[in-house]
Amino acid sequence: MGEHVVVTEVGPRDGLQIAKAIMPTPIKARWIAAIAAAGVTEIEVGSFVPPRLIPQMADTPEIVRGAVHLPSVTVLALAPNLRGAQDAYANGAHRVVVPVSVSAGHSQSNLNRTPAEQVGEVARIVAWLRQQPRPVGIEAACSTAFGCSIDGVVPPSAVLAVASGLAAAGVDSLSLADTVGYAHPAQIRTLVRAVRAEVGGKLQRLHLHDTMGLGLANALAGIEEGVRQFDAALAGLGGCPFAPGASGNIVTEDLVFMLESMGFATGIELDKLIAARSILAEGLPGETLRGGLGRAGIPRTFRAAA
Amino acid sequence: MGEHVVVTEVGPRDGLQIAKAIMPTPIKARWIAAIAAAGVTEIEVGSFVPPRLIPQMADTPEIVRGAVHLPSVTVLALAPNLRGAQDAYANGAHRVVVPVSVSAGHSQSNLNRTPAEQVGEVARIVAWLRQQPRPVGIEAACSTAFGCSIDGVVPPSAVLAVASGLAAAGVDSLSLADTVGYAHPAQIRTLVRAVRAEVGGKLQRLHLHDTMGLGLANALAGIEEGVRQFDAALAGLGGCPFAPGASGNIVTEDLVFMLESMGFATGIELDKLIAARSILAEGLPGETLRGGLGRAGIPRTFRAAA
Repeated sequence: MGEHVVVTEVGPRDGLQIAKAIMPTPIKARWIAAIAAAGVTEIEVGSFVPPRLIPQMADTPEIVRGAVHLPSVTVLALAPNLRGAQDAYANGAHRVVVPVSVSAGHSQSNLNRTPAEQVGEVARIVAWLRQQPRPVGIEAACSTAFGCSIDGVVPPSAVLAVASGLAAAGVDSLSLADTVGYAHPAQIRTLVRAVRAEVGGKLQRLHLHDTMGLGLANALAGIEEGVRQFDAALAGLGGCPFAPGASGNIVTEDLVFMLESMGFATGIELDKLIAARSILAEGLPGETLRGGLGRAGIPRTFRAAA
Repeated sequence: MGEHVVVTEVGPRDGLQIAKAIMPTPIKARWIAAIAAAGVTEIEVGSFVPPRLIPQMADTPEIVRGAVHLPSVTVLALAPNLRGAQDAYANGAHRVVVPVSVSAGHSQSNLNRTPAEQVGEVARIVAWLRQQPRPVGIEAACSTAFGCSIDGVVPPSAVLAVASGLAAAGVDSLSLADTVGYAHPAQIRTLVRAVRAEVGGKLQRLHLHDTMGLGLANALAGIEEGVRQFDAALAGLGGCPFAPGASGNIVTEDLVFMLESMGFATGIELDKLIAARSILAEGLPGETLRGGLGRAGIPRTFRAAA
């Protein structure tokens, strides 16, 4: 058995929120169950945001309440503010993920707050959740950590300031998110090292997009830096509002193939994962499904001895 | 200035040979000239094979004769046998690339010879070319080095046997080709090290396909092992006959973006390279053009100081 790497499926949240159509709730529930049945142990199933802002996420309460009954699955839900975190708690989410944009422009446009104000909101979320009887994990995602389509270059010092603020606020863990897909492998290495020097083991995850085709190369750089948790979306679902036609999250099945081929253990069965694409296609008929394995199939050399 | 990495454009050969349509010769010549004008210094422009086998390559003699007049470009041409190498020489190619399949099944189906017989053919090509008045480079490409769609797993020992045979035959350089796109980063590292231990500096290049989405991750592994020459195709042209819809070569513009972002110098101007996609689209109207930068544009953080 190789070293374990956690691959967290975020398609039902980050993938669907940008999709042109709205996936019907029963299909979404079936899709999430199929992902879980493939061995995925962490799934970000939705986002507690006002339905008028992101109608694709309107069924998040119902989806969360269903998903928590899946065996061996940690159910993650995004919440941009205290109100969303309270809803996530009330519906039974196991972990709340709070986005904090590092760049001022993205923070203003996405959250209508400065980065420092959002760090303050995280502190309020932590304080509230820690008072509740049921323990809930709290993860903060440092969005636009590698660059921003609005502000351009994001200085590492800004990432460090946000990360240390979040650590001080008491989150359980942090992720660095390449929200717009500008990152390159050398930058991944540098920033992971710098943030780890600032907050240590709190930095646990990378959230990567494949906008420029560098998604798995960036994941490899993260792996080589010791990162052992990655977000990904089945069929690379999602896109980028600023760049029509641009790719979404890194492709879960391709990431799993890379990791397992390299000797890491993900606990995920690739054939079942690929089969779950058909439910996604059923629920979102117009959407482009990406990914190498989805097109070409599992290489016959996979897991065969050389 | 960063360390130099050679990015060799192989779209006019490896990309076009599998395309559904045949690119008109004048457009092909314009396309190659545009790639050269972007700063690409090595271009594999065609293949000296019988036109009845690969009609897309029928104009290779004319294309080579034109391309050698492009300033600062090394013109590569593929030749599977002595006859092809003689034609490549006669038409003025600067370097001949000879494919040698490592796996018996691929060798038989592609070249109608065993790997050992093809190594013998390379020896004949070397002997003949070395006797000619004009010096011509001779590169051998070890096809299916990382796995084969016909034979499955390709043992490293088979790669080493072919590589050492080719070095003994006197080629100037060798490449390892992931012909069907089965490779993963750990395998790239292991095989590059093993082949280098066998043939030293003769191993110069990786030829990677993006079938499973791992192309740039594999290139990164190669970079980290010290490889400084890579084949790539504009817009990831090409495909895989065994897997309809599968991706072709790694995308030149995405590779250049990755390398330049990481501080390597390719000498290639990304905007001009991306602009050359429109000539490709003009010459092959039905073909899918892939690539992150082609869709999303050059990130605004590119080459900006952080």
